[in-house]
Amino acid sequence: MPDDGFIDELRSTLDQGSVLCGAEIDARYHHDMAGIPVPKPRAVVRPRTTEQVSALLQLCHRHGVPVTTQGGMTGLVRAALPNAGEIVLSMERMNAIEEVDVSGGVAIAQAGTPLQKLQERVEQDGMMFPLDLGARGSCSIGGNLATNAGGNRVIKYGMMRDQVLGVEAVLASGEIIGGMNKMIKNNSGYDLRHLLIGSEGTLAVITRVVLRLRPKPTATATAWCGLPDFAAVTTLLTRAQASLAPGVSAFEVMWAGYHDTVIANLKNLRAPLAEAHPFYVLLESVGTDPVRHGEAFEEFLGGMLDAGIVTDAAIASNEAHARDFWAIRDAPGEYDRFIPNYAAYDVSFSIAQVGDAAAQCEARLRARWPDAIVMTYGHLGDGNIHIVVDLPGRGKQDHDDIDAVIYDVTREFEGSISAEHGIGMKKRDYLHLARRETDIAAMRAIKASLDPHGLLNPGKVF
Amino acid sequence: MPDDGFIDELRSTLDQGSVLCGAEIDARYHHDMAGIPVPKPRAVVRPRTTEQVSALLQLCHRHGVPVTTQGGMTGLVRAALPNAGEIVLSMERMNAIEEVDVSGGVAIAQAGTPLQKLQERVEQDGMMFPLDLGARGSCSIGGNLATNAGGNRVIKYGMMRDQVLGVEAVLASGEIIGGMNKMIKNNSGYDLRHLLIGSEGTLAVITRVVLRLRPKPTATATAWCGLPDFAAVTTLLTRAQASLAPGVSAFEVMWAGYHDTVIANLKNLRAPLAEAHPFYVLLESVGTDPVRHGEAFEEFLGGMLDAGIVTDAAIASNEAHARDFWAIRDAPGEYDRFIPNYAAYDVSFSIAQVGDAAAQCEARLRARWPDAIVMTYGHLGDGNIHIVVDLPGRGKQDHDDIDAVIYDVTREFEGSISAEHGIGMKKRDYLHLARRETDIAAMRAIKASLDPHGLLNPGKVF
Repeated sequence: MPDDGFIDELRSTLDQGSVLCGAEIDARYHHDMAGIPVPKPRAVVRPRTTEQVSALLQLCHRHGVPVTTQGGMTGLVRAALPNAGEIVLSMERMNAIEEVDVSGGVAIAQAGTPLQKLQERVEQDGMMFPLDLGARGSCSIGGNLATNAGGNRVIKYGMMRDQVLGVEAVLASGEIIGGMNKMIKNNSGYDLRHLLIGSEGTLAVITRVVLRLRPKPTATATAWCGLPDFAAVTTLLTRAQASLAPGVSAFEVMWAGYHDTVIANLKNLRAPLAEAHPFYVLLESVGTDPVRHGEAFEEFLGGMLDAGIVTDAAIASNEAHARDFWAIRDAPGEYDRFIPNYAAYDVSFSIAQVGDAAAQCEARLRARWPDAIVMTYGHLGDGNIHIVVDLPGRGKQDHDDIDAVIYDVTREFEGSISAEHGIGMKKRDYLHLARRETDIAAMRAIKASLDPHGLLNPGKVF
Repeated sequence: MPDDGFIDELRSTLDQGSVLCGAEIDARYHHDMAGIPVPKPRAVVRPRTTEQVSALLQLCHRHGVPVTTQGGMTGLVRAALPNAGEIVLSMERMNAIEEVDVSGGVAIAQAGTPLQKLQERVEQDGMMFPLDLGARGSCSIGGNLATNAGGNRVIKYGMMRDQVLGVEAVLASGEIIGGMNKMIKNNSGYDLRHLLIGSEGTLAVITRVVLRLRPKPTATATAWCGLPDFAAVTTLLTRAQASLAPGVSAFEVMWAGYHDTVIANLKNLRAPLAEAHPFYVLLESVGTDPVRHGEAFEEFLGGMLDAGIVTDAAIASNEAHARDFWAIRDAPGEYDRFIPNYAAYDVSFSIAQVGDAAAQCEARLRARWPDAIVMTYGHLGDGNIHIVVDLPGRGKQDHDDIDAVIYDVTREFEGSISAEHGIGMKKRDYLHLARRETDIAAMRAIKASLDPHGLLNPGKVF
């Protein structure tokens, strides 16, 4: 451990207000949405510019002090919690939107900008920034990049990776790399941008980014469908993408176990269809012409009903009606009210295998815990499902065993143990289930080449 | 140089037909589309499996022998030509399409598969692989990945990078990394796939890939537009993307200098509009319903004419008519017939700056060479333009000076010197114009971490 003079040097290098110690350190710097907090970090540094980030990292490099970078602290895998004795680098004061360029279709934002702030700013100019998550009010653009965030609109617009043209970042040495590339095409050497995206703060500190904007859609149609089996669900997806293409903006599937449990436990929810069905799909499509788009949507669903692919369906008659459908899909925010000890998984498979993989998970869980509550739902268009398991009366004591069941199936189906949340500390011990040993060795080699002393976010990912 | 026993060891490790030497080596292994050939390589090795690639690279690693990997040899920057004494690794016998999975929307192909073979195979199942280039008959999927190829449909479907879910590759050590990931979402550690894409064979040899397929569009509308100024061109782009969105599948802009020169010199071409205009745009939109889509396209263009954004327009009445429009845009294939000594550039800028950057290039070229033929055209939706310059009566003697003019403007406008062709050997000395010194140092560090002896495609990129 370096002596206390390090903090003094920090304070003299940056401005006084940038460095917080001891009682000045709020709980939010050592607590995230994944639960149990860690001890207070040695100091919290809140730079205002890329040059200050560079100055901080140069100092840390010289003294061998490790650094954990923080965005909005809404992650679910403990990737932004500091280890003992570390410095926290909070990006919260680098939160300016520097430019919105409508004709170029781009915005420049600092990494600490909250997602919702950016969404609202570009909407003023008739544009849309399509990435969207429940944590939008708190999560930061830099955190979205570090984790390659997914969310509600991936089926149409892609993940965070697909929204980014340029990235400026600071290496562990303090050197600044990348820049404000606004070009859609730029094939000149290795794409360091894509290497940093999803690396969870272990390779560099992202400071400023160029984001791609889209025209805001002016028409939306939403339907709630009941289906007879999983084959019908995948057929509906394929047909919707071919016929409504490329307007499908959400395709959220819910197994009956999910639907029935949340409807039974949350009094504000009502089942949209009179009869029970084995599967439900929330289908949303966006377009530019409300009349033509609405007609095409109704016509498409009529065809699916005639073909028996959809057994019953309700089309939202207005925005409030559509919000009622979405409330059922958004019920996971209310789990604490009826299954406070639940275990949750974020897995993905090839779309063709989602049905079999989910059935295997449920069968193996029930074989071992016959009274288990198993709720399966997710973004079928992305192959990403969430599985939530609760063992009534048994608290959290069996969570490691549930992990083993779910991750065994994930491995057997060559799926991913983390579709959109990342690895962090929480899934680090399971990384070998998702990646070859040679991949992990290559990652370590790249890490060592860019951060030879291992100072950036140590102990995360691998 | 290792002794001749190396070739014997190669022959005994792989099968006999895999190793070509001396007179067995055809000209195609040391000649590409960028021009001047290089001397014959020491040997050409044509493996049939990933394991054979691995065995070859293990042997080369042990003996310190450098290797250049080759696809279809259609590149334009001399990135796949071997240096003296090198082994050529040709992927031409790894050309199988292993799987086409319609419900999963993916195909698995070996890296040596020609692009057109893949396109035609998936069309049999009603799907589309959207990447498309003039070299489709010869270029390989692996080469498309190594260069992150662009082409005709980037505005709607993205570049090669955006079509790929999984990559299997072999490191210089012979270790196999990556795999047949079919998942759209997979946030588990560093994305090595994106690091390899666009690295021009310098980090690993890509052997097999999982490609994303799209539903085939069933309606296409095409128009040829005359516009009064470049501001109108960018407005048309923005409005088309908002109104026809997301159906705009091509937005090709041509400056009058391009249009007038090719029409005057190529007898098979006819000007689609009666009057002359400062700018022309070839606009193409795809959809699923021919009637609705055609109506919306006509209505949109009518509005643009009423608003004075478009001065005149012709809508293709059938496929043959649309092909006449495309023939004007495809005229670069005929340059050799009237300007055999031309210099060609592949640059990109932020869309908002394309007009000013192109005007600067032309003004500076004319200030120095008043009689220069300057033809500017390209994919405005991607910010990517091609500039072709011919100096009548002066051969190729001034090409270095033309380079300097174009690349000066590119640097001043923070553009890219290579939008879609890559760096290779041809633009290596200009890489510093496109990337910071710190970026190049980071690339070298990554290269050294994965290929410590510098055996994979040495002398390319940097």
